[in-house]
Amino acid sequence: MNFSVYEYPRPAVTVDTVVFGLDDDCLKVLLIKRRHAPFAGSWALPGGFIEENEPLECAARRELAEETGLSDIFIEQLYTFGDPGRDPRGHTISVCYYGLVNLSEHEIRGASDASEARWFAVNALPELAFDHDEIIRMALQRLKGKVRYQPIGFELLPQKFTLSQLQRLYEIILEKPLDKRNFRKKILGMDLLIDLNERQQDVAHRAARLYRFDEEKYNLLIKNGLNFEI
Amino acid sequence: MNFSVYEYPRPAVTVDTVVFGLDDDCLKVLLIKRRHAPFAGSWALPGGFIEENEPLECAARRELAEETGLSDIFIEQLYTFGDPGRDPRGHTISVCYYGLVNLSEHEIRGASDASEARWFAVNALPELAFDHDEIIRMALQRLKGKVRYQPIGFELLPQKFTLSQLQRLYEIILEKPLDKRNFRKKILGMDLLIDLNERQQDVAHRAARLYRFDEEKYNLLIKNGLNFEI
Repeated sequence: MNFSVYEYPRPAVTVDTVVFGLDDDCLKVLLIKRRHAPFAGSWALPGGFIEENEPLECAARRELAEETGLSDIFIEQLYTFGDPGRDPRGHTISVCYYGLVNLSEHEIRGASDASEARWFAVNALPELAFDHDEIIRMALQRLKGKVRYQPIGFELLPQKFTLSQLQRLYEIILEKPLDKRNFRKKILGMDLLIDLNERQQDVAHRAARLYRFDEEKYNLLIKNGLNFEI
Repeated sequence: MNFSVYEYPRPAVTVDTVVFGLDDDCLKVLLIKRRHAPFAGSWALPGGFIEENEPLECAARRELAEETGLSDIFIEQLYTFGDPGRDPRGHTISVCYYGLVNLSEHEIRGASDASEARWFAVNALPELAFDHDEIIRMALQRLKGKVRYQPIGFELLPQKFTLSQLQRLYEIILEKPLDKRNFRKKILGMDLLIDLNERQQDVAHRAARLYRFDEEKYNLLIKNGLNFEI
């Protein structure tokens, strides 16, 4: 076996990713069941050690693909956690990412170091390995913060969606009911949605109008922010 | 000499901090002159290797104090940079912070690994070591982004300030002139400032009113965000 030798001690470096998915009526997070110690058999975020000369985001994507089969999704750096004691194996720093997917368009499977991969509602999480509960809390906070100054939903909703689905997404993320009329006025006022002149298929009641995001305007708003231009 | 031996290769981990200070009419960033290779003699962000079992923010504060004499300032995690090749010594990940200080209330000095510490205007930076120009660019972007959804200025302005000083701060960060009447209307409408019923001393022209931030409301706005409540 080859060993790596350094003049000074180095912390280990891992990457972990919080992937959110939107279900009919709740926000879910993707967890894997750990195969190995520490915390063997516990649920945890998909992630693992970065490899030599591997860029951080590549490592996060590699681990996600290896452990859950997910690839080509939106991810963004969240925060780096480095409290000594967060990993029983010793000083370990985790560079964390968060991602968003539309649940209906992505299939997951457990693989490699994970014996199983599964979606859990964010308000009904199992006990988690390491400080992964804290990492998920921060990712949720980031998501809530983002709603205030950027449009969101593009990655979480199906391509065509109704205003009710979009409102539900905001209600789920903000954890509070929103006034329907007020929400519609604001969201349509942002000039972000394209009315597809289509209606839902296969619904029992009155079929609602379908919309999609205007991708160009959406990206512009993400770049420039929504509001408070002083 | 003792060496550290690991089963798998580990990247080195550093911390670097972008400290912004506000001068009369420009935003400055604190740089140190490197004493040692690589980039000996070059200007760089204050920072260095984290120690065994040292929390990340502690490491950033320690390096800042050691290299510039600055302590007890506002800092916040910015982003973690980890592109292989960013450090000629090998795979090195830097967890970066940014900080804000009021220039008039903090004295700096070069120390330890830095032969010199000095403030540079952000639009007139010298050539920088490593990818530190990229790190500063991201910190500036974060600062600009923050202006849109959080009050800022508390850490950058003196305790008592005029509306012109506050406007100048926003103009410097946003890099564009703002309409005076509109700015005052918006900023006073945020109910964030306390009118001190005092006026500037020792000014040649008409002395302007002095304000301070309502710290409680300021912190509440930081927590809750300024605007776009859908």
